[in-house]
Amino acid sequence: MIDFPGIENLTRKTSSRILLVVIDGLGGYFDNATNNSELEDARTPNLDNLAGESACGLSIPVDHGITPGSGPGHLSLFGYDPIKYQVGRGVLEALGLGFELNANQIAIRGNFALSNAEGVITDRRANRISSEISSNLVKKLSNILLPGFQTDVELIRDHRFLLVLTSENIAPNYYPFVSDTDPGLNGLKPLACEPTYPETIKIADAINSFVTQTRNLLRDNQQANTILLRGISKVPKFPSMQEKYKLNPIGIAAYPMYLGLAKLAGMEIVGENTDFAAEIESLKTVIKVDEHDFFFLHYKPADTAGEDGDRKAKILALEEFDKFIPAIKDIGADVLVIAGDHSTPAILAAHSWHSVPFLINTSFTKADGQGSFSEKEFRGGSLGLIKAKSIMMLALAHAGKLKKFGS
Amino acid sequence: MIDFPGIENLTRKTSSRILLVVIDGLGGYFDNATNNSELEDARTPNLDNLAGESACGLSIPVDHGITPGSGPGHLSLFGYDPIKYQVGRGVLEALGLGFELNANQIAIRGNFALSNAEGVITDRRANRISSEISSNLVKKLSNILLPGFQTDVELIRDHRFLLVLTSENIAPNYYPFVSDTDPGLNGLKPLACEPTYPETIKIADAINSFVTQTRNLLRDNQQANTILLRGISKVPKFPSMQEKYKLNPIGIAAYPMYLGLAKLAGMEIVGENTDFAAEIESLKTVIKVDEHDFFFLHYKPADTAGEDGDRKAKILALEEFDKFIPAIKDIGADVLVIAGDHSTPAILAAHSWHSVPFLINTSFTKADGQGSFSEKEFRGGSLGLIKAKSIMMLALAHAGKLKKFGS
Repeated sequence: MIDFPGIENLTRKTSSRILLVVIDGLGGYFDNATNNSELEDARTPNLDNLAGESACGLSIPVDHGITPGSGPGHLSLFGYDPIKYQVGRGVLEALGLGFELNANQIAIRGNFALSNAEGVITDRRANRISSEISSNLVKKLSNILLPGFQTDVELIRDHRFLLVLTSENIAPNYYPFVSDTDPGLNGLKPLACEPTYPETIKIADAINSFVTQTRNLLRDNQQANTILLRGISKVPKFPSMQEKYKLNPIGIAAYPMYLGLAKLAGMEIVGENTDFAAEIESLKTVIKVDEHDFFFLHYKPADTAGEDGDRKAKILALEEFDKFIPAIKDIGADVLVIAGDHSTPAILAAHSWHSVPFLINTSFTKADGQGSFSEKEFRGGSLGLIKAKSIMMLALAHAGKLKKFGS
Repeated sequence: MIDFPGIENLTRKTSSRILLVVIDGLGGYFDNATNNSELEDARTPNLDNLAGESACGLSIPVDHGITPGSGPGHLSLFGYDPIKYQVGRGVLEALGLGFELNANQIAIRGNFALSNAEGVITDRRANRISSEISSNLVKKLSNILLPGFQTDVELIRDHRFLLVLTSENIAPNYYPFVSDTDPGLNGLKPLACEPTYPETIKIADAINSFVTQTRNLLRDNQQANTILLRGISKVPKFPSMQEKYKLNPIGIAAYPMYLGLAKLAGMEIVGENTDFAAEIESLKTVIKVDEHDFFFLHYKPADTAGEDGDRKAKILALEEFDKFIPAIKDIGADVLVIAGDHSTPAILAAHSWHSVPFLINTSFTKADGQGSFSEKEFRGGSLGLIKAKSIMMLALAHAGKLKKFGS
């Protein structure tokens, strides 16, 4: 179920339109020098003004202390309980490559790795070999035959690859249905892939055969002589935003993984967008002509800068986003939600568990008393500190799309 | 279970007394002209002073974005999880009429409606015909015979009526056990009542027979020629406040529906009270002589004004309530809780999902730093933004009625 039990009995179709803008890695943390977060040091006059006319709060992406990946970070914002609706790493990598998976396909994340004469892993990432080297190894792996399975091997980047097995509907929809071969640490031997259920023995056998054949092929290779597989998964079938919310949703993003996540929620994908400016143009075109009532836009640069540990770049990315606010407001959605999938503090150079500011703007939301868009200010917002999965409920409420509960 | 698992092992009987005063529709929203909520514009010096000596917070009646009806709004404040403890609309209407339901009775909310020659509903509310007209139709329906069932039809108001079927213990306690005949929209045909479980076929058959007979009776009636039934339900058996909290509770309200909800929680009902002043007098009388330790008082006018979209009347209703505070304090309960079942912002002229201020006052609670009773001030209260179902736990704690959990 999406967040609230029986939500499909509470939602109603209306003409109002919701625009959800996700600033990837929006939240930050205090810098030693300035004692301010990136948002607090960024000059964001448009966001600050918007905060003054909005209902504001802080969101916890998954749970206290949990640092989310992109999958749970976004699914939460689409209203899915991220603990219940999990996406395997293999599927997420496939989505990231724009690889369209169907119900007969199993997606697996692979690492090229190094092991010693005893088979003990000495480097799980094979010295992070270049994509150039990896692409040659990928070609070799593409020759492996598995009776009953079609295999596709695709380079992701550096030591990372995607393995897709296709066979007639043999894998169940739950995850995980077989275990990883990657033990997660150097100094250990790769694990055999084990079936989690009796009906997944064939899949485990095929995967173990793939690994054995790979080792034979790479035996004398100096750069990488083995592989590690994990996140062996099928594209999940989640209840859709159409079913649960009676929405007709559209997803617009520049990166395939976010489009893939949008598709998991039932969104239609629009345009080939190279950056956020292009996304807005796509939205402007589509919102004029159609009957869609939910739009998801994705802004990436803040996360990228945060992951790089580049505080200045993150501040700049937030300031650049701020300049888009007039264009975003011009779109004229009835409910505008600005939120983040997680924090990416530059000081940590990684995703983090810290809570993330969000706001909901409509023609009737009023000054929450928060005149600045920041982590510190939004602590006092009227929406409080809430799980990110509830933001969608608030958006639906503000859009008049939720009937009264009980009499 | 009531809110906390195993609560009956934590609660203990003490002599302390809790008074819960529910201001119906207490919460509001910002007005365009003043940028203040109704509470912020109301002059409430007594509530403001009380806030300065209390623990304060904001409550979410059911969940983020969910707009509650009176049932879930009140059950939450009595400590029941409103998602788990749902009351059918039929039962709630019966409670509202003061109709005493027993375990052999099924309560159904009916609408007089209009349909065209093809049987398609053209008006689900039959132009909201007057109670005068309806009462004649109710008389006609009272002649319908259902073998094995006693039928009672009661006018609610305008196009609304209550149908009660009585038969020996044939309906299960869960809800819904048969489906509605009301499709919820004009332009559709009424639905057949369908059993949700095999053992409810007889009930569905009886209801379908009632509908068919009604159509035959009303065939040539211009004002209403059909009926729509929904919320087909039995009075639920909830764990009581006696069982779970070891309380000996009393409910005092001027409107039957709230008394009915109090009864669902196991409260004893006192007095026939025409308004809040009369409720207080009833309370004064009862508290002198007996061993009760929990008292629920209900104040209705704020909700009525909010529903009417009458901001001035709502402010006035809050100001009028404020004048009762000295009398409420004089009663001398050990723990005084002032809370609301939901918000009813005048600007929306309806119940809403917005969070609601609440306070807990005892001889040892201290200024929370909140010198004013309002939505904005209470954001910073020590009790935070919490689900309304937890307020009862806080009341029990403040009353010394909760033992230590674990060692």
